[in-house]
Amino acid sequence: MAAVDASSSPPAAITCRAAVAWGPGQPLVMEQVEVAPPGPMEIRVKVVCTSVCRSDVSAWQSKAQPDLFPRIFGHEASGVVESVGEGATEFQVGDHVLTVFIGECKSCKHCISGKSNMCQKLGLERRGVMHSDQKTRFSVKGKPVYHYCAVSSFSEYTVVHSGCAVKVGPTVPMDRVCLLSCGVSAGLGAAWNVANVSKGSSVAIFGLGTVGLSVAQGAKLRGVSKIIGIDTNPEKQEKGKAFGVTDFINPDELNEPVQQCDKNDVYRMFFSCLQIIKRITDGGADYSFECVGDTGVVSTALQSCSDGWGVTVTLGVPKAKPEVSAHYAFLLSGRTLKGSLFGGWRPKSDLPSLVDKYADKEIQVDGLVTHDIQFNDINKALDLMLENKCLRCVIHMTLLDN
Amino acid sequence: MAAVDASSSPPAAITCRAAVAWGPGQPLVMEQVEVAPPGPMEIRVKVVCTSVCRSDVSAWQSKAQPDLFPRIFGHEASGVVESVGEGATEFQVGDHVLTVFIGECKSCKHCISGKSNMCQKLGLERRGVMHSDQKTRFSVKGKPVYHYCAVSSFSEYTVVHSGCAVKVGPTVPMDRVCLLSCGVSAGLGAAWNVANVSKGSSVAIFGLGTVGLSVAQGAKLRGVSKIIGIDTNPEKQEKGKAFGVTDFINPDELNEPVQQCDKNDVYRMFFSCLQIIKRITDGGADYSFECVGDTGVVSTALQSCSDGWGVTVTLGVPKAKPEVSAHYAFLLSGRTLKGSLFGGWRPKSDLPSLVDKYADKEIQVDGLVTHDIQFNDINKALDLMLENKCLRCVIHMTLLDN
Repeated sequence: MAAVDASSSPPAAITCRAAVAWGPGQPLVMEQVEVAPPGPMEIRVKVVCTSVCRSDVSAWQSKAQPDLFPRIFGHEASGVVESVGEGATEFQVGDHVLTVFIGECKSCKHCISGKSNMCQKLGLERRGVMHSDQKTRFSVKGKPVYHYCAVSSFSEYTVVHSGCAVKVGPTVPMDRVCLLSCGVSAGLGAAWNVANVSKGSSVAIFGLGTVGLSVAQGAKLRGVSKIIGIDTNPEKQEKGKAFGVTDFINPDELNEPVQQCDKNDVYRMFFSCLQIIKRITDGGADYSFECVGDTGVVSTALQSCSDGWGVTVTLGVPKAKPEVSAHYAFLLSGRTLKGSLFGGWRPKSDLPSLVDKYADKEIQVDGLVTHDIQFNDINKALDLMLENKCLRCVIHMTLLDN
Repeated sequence: MAAVDASSSPPAAITCRAAVAWGPGQPLVMEQVEVAPPGPMEIRVKVVCTSVCRSDVSAWQSKAQPDLFPRIFGHEASGVVESVGEGATEFQVGDHVLTVFIGECKSCKHCISGKSNMCQKLGLERRGVMHSDQKTRFSVKGKPVYHYCAVSSFSEYTVVHSGCAVKVGPTVPMDRVCLLSCGVSAGLGAAWNVANVSKGSSVAIFGLGTVGLSVAQGAKLRGVSKIIGIDTNPEKQEKGKAFGVTDFINPDELNEPVQQCDKNDVYRMFFSCLQIIKRITDGGADYSFECVGDTGVVSTALQSCSDGWGVTVTLGVPKAKPEVSAHYAFLLSGRTLKGSLFGGWRPKSDLPSLVDKYADKEIQVDGLVTHDIQFNDINKALDLMLENKCLRCVIHMTLLDN
């Protein structure tokens, strides 16, 4: 499918198919793109599968960075190393890898600290270019095409920094392990690393998408007693059970009187929720998680947890209203609000152990894939996400058998 | 000075002097008040000294609860047990005590947990009455006078729940140890219990009042390397040094270009501060503390600490704008925001050890007292606090020698 322009040593540009967004929210267009050879410390990856994350869709729809189009989205992916740039000796052609949207250079203050995944060299890239030279590796007919999170996996081939890829064993199913590249790991890490949930405790999870269900799974594996899932989609009740949710609340179906906790909070539908959570947990959850991507829900989540020791973790990237706000009294009474990217995991140091857990069937991933979709049909996956009709859609870059 | 109405067994009502606020912000008026005998599990305390805390002044000025006047403020106090109510067997007449504005019943879920000071029975009282029966113990000519924090120490005698008083040894100076009843303990506890600052780390403290200076002291005693104090009062530079501050920043005197971190934040004077803090700490403080009582400063404090691991503790009670707000990205990048009342100390379980540290000269308290004032002149103390011309004013209920 891909045409290699020159001999394979040294690597030359590749022409292949990529799903290009030409403007915010515009359907992706399958284009022939040129993919530059990997630069120093970079690798070029033949993408095998990429799943679609809510943040791909939010960024694609956002009008905040109109200059960064045309752009290739996608960051949750598995693939095979096609070529290796100068100095990227960690990798060999043929290695199976996961891409990661925040890298780990292992030499900056944060990487050395052992307590942060906010790598100063390979942190979250927001300008649509590669970390090393602030340039793109993609073009269509000579016109640069911007990256997303320095991954851009909605392409048959992509270039990533060697610090933004993690080797996985050759037998791990590529069409499922890609979910560990972002969503599932974020949820598990939020429960295990960030909140550090304890056995016998109670947890409230606002939003049972892939991330929220993975928080539930993490809580269940830690022996949490009460795992309360809150979602307005009634189908999440059954799905939640499969991932450990013990109590399901659909705010849309509540007849409880509204408890006005905060006059400035417009998310009143969640107020009656609070009463139920406080009843189930005898005063408030030990931990709560915002997995919707809505800053108003962060405030509700904070209120849902216990004073004295409650911890609220915010994971979502909001589509609107970037300010998190909460009445000071909810903090002064002993609550903690914290956030994390990628569940606090250091991608290169920690992700291999999660992949091992998946290979050993200690963690569940497959049940989060609701759709397998051909690359040609990638817009269907975006539509399903917009309509809240999927958990993870896995995009297969090569033709599926059926 | 006090007239006992009846024989001392069983205790009868006492008539004594109290500084009564008849309306929000109105100068306190010295009145003859009747103080009821202690009810079951209560004690009546002859107040020896009471220091004036910022929250007394804020509550006195606040127009939020006009129905709770006339009212007797004051909560940071030392005294001697004058009489003991039924069942309050922990205390004997003559015991020296500190009052505390949040109690510890030792039997509720929070007290039993060992990890919370949010006692469900004797928590912060906001309605101007006693916890047990929702009534007052004060009256002036038959008219009830409301309490403050169930302590009301701006009176020669007051009634408190036995769970809201802590015994201290008879040799501890009553005119100084009263500061451990709230402000000093809050600051030390924020550093030790809530943030749990570590040796060699960096700390930024916004506001060098009694609480902020006590945070600095706590940090110094833990071996923190960089203790950055931020205050608009230039006199705090020298005072800060005495309590461990290594770097002083006066935002009003900065010529640094403004770093616009948050368009919605009106506290722009603090933005150039951020640049300096980040320079001193190579990227951000490990811990930051909001000790001003301003929710806008909470956001600045959060920005001043490091991504990946930074912890911000909010201690202040805001006079306006009760909503704390922060851009979600400051949380998602791994910061933690938490709050505490009374520095996380469980008053009855933990305060005696702090008093011991003071008695053993392990912690500094005396240097925070800037004024010793006769009870008759209590309005001077309120004025000094309003004018930011004091740290702690200690009110002496009996005449001073000079």
